[in-house]
Amino acid sequence: MNIILLDAEELSETKSVTLTGRRFEHIRQVLKAEVGDRLRVGQINGQRGHAEVLSIDAHGCQLACVFAEPPPPTPEMILIIALPRPQTLKKLLLEATSLGIAALHFVRGRRTDKNYFQSKVLEAERLRHHLLLGLEQSGDTRLPPVTLHKRFRPFVEDSLDSLLPDACQRLLADAQSHRPLAESGPIKPGPVALAIGPEGGWTDFEREQWRAAGFDEFSLGPRILRVETAALVAMAQLRLLQQLWPNS
Amino acid sequence: MNIILLDAEELSETKSVTLTGRRFEHIRQVLKAEVGDRLRVGQINGQRGHAEVLSIDAHGCQLACVFAEPPPPTPEMILIIALPRPQTLKKLLLEATSLGIAALHFVRGRRTDKNYFQSKVLEAERLRHHLLLGLEQSGDTRLPPVTLHKRFRPFVEDSLDSLLPDACQRLLADAQSHRPLAESGPIKPGPVALAIGPEGGWTDFEREQWRAAGFDEFSLGPRILRVETAALVAMAQLRLLQQLWPNS
Repeated sequence: MNIILLDAEELSETKSVTLTGRRFEHIRQVLKAEVGDRLRVGQINGQRGHAEVLSIDAHGCQLACVFAEPPPPTPEMILIIALPRPQTLKKLLLEATSLGIAALHFVRGRRTDKNYFQSKVLEAERLRHHLLLGLEQSGDTRLPPVTLHKRFRPFVEDSLDSLLPDACQRLLADAQSHRPLAESGPIKPGPVALAIGPEGGWTDFEREQWRAAGFDEFSLGPRILRVETAALVAMAQLRLLQQLWPNS
Repeated sequence: MNIILLDAEELSETKSVTLTGRRFEHIRQVLKAEVGDRLRVGQINGQRGHAEVLSIDAHGCQLACVFAEPPPPTPEMILIIALPRPQTLKKLLLEATSLGIAALHFVRGRRTDKNYFQSKVLEAERLRHHLLLGLEQSGDTRLPPVTLHKRFRPFVEDSLDSLLPDACQRLLADAQSHRPLAESGPIKPGPVALAIGPEGGWTDFEREQWRAAGFDEFSLGPRILRVETAALVAMAQLRLLQQLWPNS
């Protein structure tokens, strides 16, 4: 926990807050904070700052916060991913959020186990918890919006254009492609949508749909990567290509 | 498990093998294999191929293997990393191996908890298990060598030159650096050593030692990443830069 994140509703008018539970236990047991110590805090979807410990005992602590610093910039990257198994989903929520992501869309591919959509991890409170873990790691405050799309075809054919920003670059990581990212067209700064398939890959029909929606396929190499690893590798490489622009 | 890995010692002269335990359970419960089915197999540190299921029941199965295909190329990347906590170590062993790595060196930084060197994960059998999970994921067969270095200064000052290949490019991911990888010098194809610090970062003394050993610092950006995430991101980006050479 590299930042203690607070909800606007928790804060008093003078920006003080009393904490118990998970954040308090971290402050007490990991940070071993004492009265007068300064902690790094952030307001969820707002600014970052610091807090002074006003009081602390075995049951809770009181902090006085000052928010004065913007969170790190959020990359304009939108991840569209076939809903993975719950364990993978948890890792992905944390890791994508820690790297920084503008939005997450989960779709149901033909090879997505439909039971995954019943996962408790998708309940609003739990989803938020796993996203917060990623923000707490990276020192960010902004929760990315997460949307579920249970029907693939209407999503790709009808919804996608209204969900993605104008001039959004569209890329599809595809195990059947042989073109590495280094040989794909230039990736400019600005919004990028990155689609990642299910464990068994996209079907030919789905691949056609992505192509028709303007997605360019690329390969992440000859190794079979776990979904969350593939997502991180692709996000990291796309970001680097944007930083290298116009020389990439 | 995208490949079933077999030890040379398990195989008969005619390359048949009887499996029980973890690999058998995967074959039975996940692959739901039947007599006559073909499975993807590999010989540890050897070639890949396929196996025909000769027999299978509730207790074990017998496979007849043919090895005729090389494993995917191993990137010439050497990871040097401050030994992390056991949970992180497990993830790192799996993920680095699945992305492909020539060698892993674990060092003890000033801010490394010395208890981490007592971790059971470092016992030969367990270490091998976590590396095998990465190979099984990616379809590789080659176990990277793993070496522990409990004394930082002798490692950097004396051992490093003999451990790294000639003309090895040397890079240090450092939270204190402000130079992104995109602005560091060109990364050529060929061997690269990548050093990643402990959670609390390197000390100034250690940073000086790395510099004296020819390591160039770079930043992974303004976000604080988990050690295993930082390693994956840096590996992925370095690989891309090598693929882009000479235009990077």
